[in-house]
Amino acid sequence: MPHPSWLITLLTDFGDRDSFVASMKGVVLTINPQATFVDLSHHVPPHSVEAAAYLLNSCYRDFPKGTVHVAVVDPGVGSARRALIAKSERYFFLAPDNGLLTYILAGNPEMEVREIENKDYRLPSAGHTFDGRDLFAPAAAWLTKQQSFESFGRLVTDCKTFTIAMPTWECKALLGEIVHVDRFGNLISNLTQQHLEEVRAVTKHQQLSIRIGKQAIAGLVASYSEGAEGQPYALINSDGKLEIFVKEASAEDLLKAGRGARIEVS
Amino acid sequence: MPHPSWLITLLTDFGDRDSFVASMKGVVLTINPQATFVDLSHHVPPHSVEAAAYLLNSCYRDFPKGTVHVAVVDPGVGSARRALIAKSERYFFLAPDNGLLTYILAGNPEMEVREIENKDYRLPSAGHTFDGRDLFAPAAAWLTKQQSFESFGRLVTDCKTFTIAMPTWECKALLGEIVHVDRFGNLISNLTQQHLEEVRAVTKHQQLSIRIGKQAIAGLVASYSEGAEGQPYALINSDGKLEIFVKEASAEDLLKAGRGARIEVS
Amino acid sequence: MPHPSWLITLLTDFGDRDSFVASMKGVVLTINPQATFVDLSHHVPPHSVEAAAYLLNSCYRDFPKGTVHVAVVDPGVGSARRALIAKSERYFFLAPDNGLLTYILAGNPEMEVREIENKDYRLPSAGHTFDGRDLFAPAAAWLTKQQSFESFGRLVTDCKTFTIAMPTWECKALLGEIVHVDRFGNLISNLTQQHLEEVRAVTKHQQLSIRIGKQAIAGLVASYSEGAEGQPYALINSDGKLEIFVKEASAEDLLKAGRGARIEVS
Repeated sequence: MPHPSWLITLLTDFGDRDSFVASMKGVVLTINPQATFVDLSHHVPPHSVEAAAYLLNSCYRDFPKGTVHVAVVDPGVGSARRALIAKSERYFFLAPDNGLLTYILAGNPEMEVREIENKDYRLPSAGHTFDGRDLFAPAAAWLTKQQSFESFGRLVTDCKTFTIAMPTWECKALLGEIVHVDRFGNLISNLTQQHLEEVRAVTKHQQLSIRIGKQAIAGLVASYSEGAEGQPYALINSDGKLEIFVKEASAEDLLKAGRGARIEVS
Repeated sequence: MPHPSWLITLLTDFGDRDSFVASMKGVVLTINPQATFVDLSHHVPPHSVEAAAYLLNSCYRDFPKGTVHVAVVDPGVGSARRALIAKSERYFFLAPDNGLLTYILAGNPEMEVREIENKDYRLPSAGHTFDGRDLFAPAAAWLTKQQSFESFGRLVTDCKTFTIAMPTWECKALLGEIVHVDRFGNLISNLTQQHLEEVRAVTKHQQLSIRIGKQAIAGLVASYSEGAEGQPYALINSDGKLEIFVKEASAEDLLKAGRGARIEVS
Repeated sequence: MPHPSWLITLLTDFGDRDSFVASMKGVVLTINPQATFVDLSHHVPPHSVEAAAYLLNSCYRDFPKGTVHVAVVDPGVGSARRALIAKSERYFFLAPDNGLLTYILAGNPEMEVREIENKDYRLPSAGHTFDGRDLFAPAAAWLTKQQSFESFGRLVTDCKTFTIAMPTWECKALLGEIVHVDRFGNLISNLTQQHLEEVRAVTKHQQLSIRIGKQAIAGLVASYSEGAEGQPYALINSDGKLEIFVKEASAEDLLKAGRGARIEVS
């Protein structure tokens, strides 16, 4: 069982030109002045629950045990959608019940999830547009003040999730998809080193052919510096994922491919 | 009387590609290593004192008592414009004397304001372009080190302010204006729930008609999720303000309306 | 000899839409939960080592003694390029060996530099694309945990550096260049107050003529507020550098000049 630490991470689509994120932090610090924050990102595309789910999954394990991860991408704010608090072996998660925890739930099947119902952990508010400040921030703060996990609300066993794109076989080719485009224009797929080994085993070839749509990737290398300029290459990135890049340039721009694009390994 | 805490918030138009904000934090930490920071926003449009004043007012109350709010949008840096330090019942504020504290002064008429004159609280500097680092940061840091409020400089009773846009009546219609556009393209007005009640009392109709310029708003709802897609709706947001939105889209883009646009309720 | 503090600054080209920076912070906090961070900037143009070198140099002195400055703009990640840890009289620096420390090395010739070789300070990783998380973050964290400087690896005496643009004389004119454009579109040169005095001594004129390319600057003033609108002026900024600005507008836009543009004082 983790013990909640004073460390809270924040992931939102609130951007940086308003004071939404600051308001959340102010509310937390009013309840627990010892809380500290790490911003995961506040530049999730507006309302993009799937992009937020990807980002949260890509980094939550890098944090110390007991970290409280708060994710608020919440187009349904103010509706009947539930607010969730969840507890894995090492972490806590707070998020709306809209699929944002999809990967976390898949990776932590033992996770206990509750609805945040306790009115004592909620700020009074004139309207229903800012649960980040009025519900999630105070709930996270009270959690770090050692309120019991059970006190937040009833157990939830039917969290909303979306379907995680899984690689599929077509003849001897493995089809995956681009699940994230990073700031450098690198295309990150849902294929791993393990998948490449499987393709090698099936095709009995060491040399793999990789395609994004109809475009062939020039080769599979070990680091960004090995690619020749102006051409797309693949590598296994530091998260173990197959990633397409162009040396010191943007694969997204060169290949005109983005999130959801199909990638084929044969 | 608040006691200054170690918590400093920062609001600037410095953006994120330079190291201006970092320099301010480094200066503070050199004087008081225990200081902590919350960034309100650094993406105020360059030189936009009114936008900064709005943002500061929208979130300063969310912070714990004793918080030191530092706001530096300062086109007059290096001129004879004064630097101010102010003390309300719960907070401290540091800002140039250019209208940035307009809403704070209006909301805290009892506030004591002084000029930051004490040279001991200033860094030596080759030029006069960066009072954020050379004047406001060290002054805030020394305040958190329990220097007396009086030691900063003389009392100021004639702070520069701009005129706050107030709703006006025209026949039985109440005219307000858009005072902020948030990251989602939501249009936030200077009208409140209270104003809507006044219109209902005057018109003796429960059903209100809301217009932005010549464009009619489809209806007044309780949350973002209630609007039909592609049409503008109004709601009372979590700050109690009348706000125009388009479900999972941008009202700013759809209505081609922004800050200063006229809103009419009848 | 500085003692490393718990304060770590981060300078990267990672942007804000991914969770790269958060991952670095999570790794540090897992090793040293008492570490604190200041973000210098994460908006260095992708792969621009020279821009990062400039930013680091412009603000590292604003931090308390013992601060650990971590800079990761690293197009050669995963290649044979070395990772460096350096110690000046007051600070520590961690960066790839690609020129990022050029100004720091020039300004601190006594600096001791070592290669980060010790595998105990490295996270295991599936690939070679994210040394920010897998190498620099844990190395910085272990440094703040009082690991000896010598334990990181062997001495390095041949760091990679780029040539720093130095002003040159052409007849009685001093030629410099724009080394940075800030968020406001101000053009910052490599000329100083001292250089202007030299030109005055050589030309025996107090009145200086300043040009960017073929465009004359309207005058040399003391602060931004002194310029007339719509015309470019020069001043000595708070870092002692000659800077071209347009009052409440962008000199970059008006003059169509940027980094590398030639500036002439006569």
